[in-house]
Amino acid sequence: MEKAFMRRLAEPKLENPIFVQGLPGFGNVGRIAAHLLIKFCDAKPFAELYSPSFPDYVSIDGKGICSLPRYEFYYVPVVKNNLVIMTGEIQPSFDDVVAHYEVCEDVIDFVETLGCHFIVTMGGIPIAEDKAQVYIAATSSRLANEFMEKGAVIYSKGRIVGGTGLTLAIAKERKLDGVSLLGTTTGFRADREAGFLVFKFLMSALGKEIKEGLVENNAPEEQ
Amino acid sequence: MEKAFMRRLAEPKLENPIFVQGLPGFGNVGRIAAHLLIKFCDAKPFAELYSPSFPDYVSIDGKGICSLPRYEFYYVPVVKNNLVIMTGEIQPSFDDVVAHYEVCEDVIDFVETLGCHFIVTMGGIPIAEDKAQVYIAATSSRLANEFMEKGAVIYSKGRIVGGTGLTLAIAKERKLDGVSLLGTTTGFRADREAGFLVFKFLMSALGKEIKEGLVENNAPEEQ
Amino acid sequence: MEKAFMRRLAEPKLENPIFVQGLPGFGNVGRIAAHLLIKFCDAKPFAELYSPSFPDYVSIDGKGICSLPRYEFYYVPVVKNNLVIMTGEIQPSFDDVVAHYEVCEDVIDFVETLGCHFIVTMGGIPIAEDKAQVYIAATSSRLANEFMEKGAVIYSKGRIVGGTGLTLAIAKERKLDGVSLLGTTTGFRADREAGFLVFKFLMSALGKEIKEGLVENNAPEEQ
Amino acid sequence: MEKAFMRRLAEPKLENPIFVQGLPGFGNVGRIAAHLLIKFCDAKPFAELYSPSFPDYVSIDGKGICSLPRYEFYYVPVVKNNLVIMTGEIQPSFDDVVAHYEVCEDVIDFVETLGCHFIVTMGGIPIAEDKAQVYIAATSSRLANEFMEKGAVIYSKGRIVGGTGLTLAIAKERKLDGVSLLGTTTGFRADREAGFLVFKFLMSALGKEIKEGLVENNAPEEQ
Repeated sequence: MEKAFMRRLAEPKLENPIFVQGLPGFGNVGRIAAHLLIKFCDAKPFAELYSPSFPDYVSIDGKGICSLPRYEFYYVPVVKNNLVIMTGEIQPSFDDVVAHYEVCEDVIDFVETLGCHFIVTMGGIPIAEDKAQVYIAATSSRLANEFMEKGAVIYSKGRIVGGTGLTLAIAKERKLDGVSLLGTTTGFRADREAGFLVFKFLMSALGKEIKEGLVENNAPEEQ
Repeated sequence: MEKAFMRRLAEPKLENPIFVQGLPGFGNVGRIAAHLLIKFCDAKPFAELYSPSFPDYVSIDGKGICSLPRYEFYYVPVVKNNLVIMTGEIQPSFDDVVAHYEVCEDVIDFVETLGCHFIVTMGGIPIAEDKAQVYIAATSSRLANEFMEKGAVIYSKGRIVGGTGLTLAIAKERKLDGVSLLGTTTGFRADREAGFLVFKFLMSALGKEIKEGLVENNAPEEQ
Repeated sequence: MEKAFMRRLAEPKLENPIFVQGLPGFGNVGRIAAHLLIKFCDAKPFAELYSPSFPDYVSIDGKGICSLPRYEFYYVPVVKNNLVIMTGEIQPSFDDVVAHYEVCEDVIDFVETLGCHFIVTMGGIPIAEDKAQVYIAATSSRLANEFMEKGAVIYSKGRIVGGTGLTLAIAKERKLDGVSLLGTTTGFRADREAGFLVFKFLMSALGKEIKEGLVENNAPEEQ
Repeated sequence: MEKAFMRRLAEPKLENPIFVQGLPGFGNVGRIAAHLLIKFCDAKPFAELYSPSFPDYVSIDGKGICSLPRYEFYYVPVVKNNLVIMTGEIQPSFDDVVAHYEVCEDVIDFVETLGCHFIVTMGGIPIAEDKAQVYIAATSSRLANEFMEKGAVIYSKGRIVGGTGLTLAIAKERKLDGVSLLGTTTGFRADREAGFLVFKFLMSALGKEIKEGLVENNAPEEQ
């Protein structure tokens, strides 16, 4: 494995899907929001990304089975605007900058082949005071304003570290549209409230388009 | 040496061999178990793997001769299920994640050309309390259960760092069968007891198949 | 983005331009001097360099729009000896030495295609005592002496870290002429005075050639 | 400069030359010994190795001229067994293991094209007590014993870090003969005495072969 590779588990038919990504990071906000989304939408796994830049430990599941670190892709089949959701237990090391760029490119390459034109990355931003809020960064000021009207605060003059920012900025280079939804969090420990807030915001923001799919599902369980 | 390379010292005829790996790590458990196995089985060296990702120091032996860091492959010729044993003084740096993946791939590539279909990696896992035990992780729940019946404890929800985990997980990606035998150890210092326990467990687990070869040898000497 | 890439925003006609580079570093002297130069000359952006070796965070502007880290190239159209000015918010990590060489080569490759034969890199050098001074290093002793006569002190037996030194030394390998202008600074914090001093020195040193272009502009604003 | 490159300054005729390397390291012993050898033999520079793995700072000489970090090769033309001497101000970072292997391979590649069959690397080894001594490691026990008879102590069960060890061990892989001469040193500061001891030992060990060239020169100056 000198290069990352994508393993396909299924070949779902997807129409103009929205791509939503939630990885570990500050307060694990992005990953928690992605898990809530997967459960709520009853999303199904259909692809896995492996990379030699992922950490060199393996995880053992409850049955004793080992697995390489990976990003997992899920899909939600609905009538209009299907969802593709990506999450994982890991990110490339923050030291390995080139790996970070490459993996984000691999993700964008893949979702472009699926027909995704809109990207949502979810993450946390650390704040000193405890004020629950969703911040927004976007590929255009039109989009930033649109999400601001939905209740987010523009993350003006900020920085987004790791995959949450890179995936969005690389998407912008490719002329894709997208936003980062950033939940405020006071700590590095898993922050379920912030994750839920980001999830709720995304649900509400994308509400119309995926409503039909969601009503078939039950209420969200907190992870 | 821009890439790893394999130097062959001999071309033993091997039939359906089992591959057993023991590298340095927690308590040096894997390396000690591999050395016990090599001595007990009177295994012969037949190949060496060199890699630019191995540490950049060289070792001098008792006669003043220098050598590059390397993995050493030994074989045990028996009637059925030959053994191929790999050990070494070093692993790639834990910082160089990509190197770790590549070297483990190189190892699997090589043992696949030898006809190996079953992989055993041996290592240590750190525990706080001093309880001698062998834990098991596997490429399938069938195998995990099989070794559990032989006395190992399933390493549920655990993590295995370095080559001990990676080689197994990459083997699984290649559709090979395999297990990790993990001896509990309380320290980072060489833990001969844990190494011996893993060695004994492996002997007993593989007992029938390699019995014929082993009875020709003497009792194991502790390293 | 496995490799750096250059995005062209415009295709200005440039005649025998001088290349001036100012990147972050000690006291941010180089970057501040480059910004003063850009403002003073009313320089226009015409190209951007992106690299997977740049830091893996993205910056959000005042409107909430994200951008990948990049080097920005500006040009000043004047009758003789056009200027090409490069600056950026970042440099590759000081740990990633190979990346540093590659990015500096990419910069030189690009400015050579623009017809640049003379390179000026601007930066800071840390000193204990507070004495404002511009030091000079060059690709030849003739040039070092020439700038010494203009008031700079030869940076004898010194070292220049990062892109400020590498770009100059790689230019020398390519048989290009060039100098480093190094402003003394006592701290790592942005040192506007040192930046202004380097800017003023460069203005005076290159005075004749770019005078015609500069008189069309206003007085410099401090950044 | 994605790869290292060799710049030739001259094309001396060399017959069966011995290659002697002295790089920075413990007590700078190797570099000091190489400089003494260069001065004593009045060796002439004929090649330079540049590498993107060398540190990303540049050095300025007394005239203000910048230079990329490099290894410098000198030759001593004598009737029999010419000498090729390599030294430099730097080594690749100890963190960048792969770079270290590559650069040492580049060095061996080059000196093999020059016809070198015998390699001498010089360096220091840190000791607690202050006892001046030259240790020896070699590519064969015959050579180790030969140099032991000349007064060196076998560096039994030791380790040699960096280029001093790697160049020798890679030479051994290529079936070249060679030795490491290791001067004991108590500190990391430049240890001129240890450097001089290693230089003297090498002079005496190679005495006969290069005598003719050396008598043309003056007494060594300490660097």
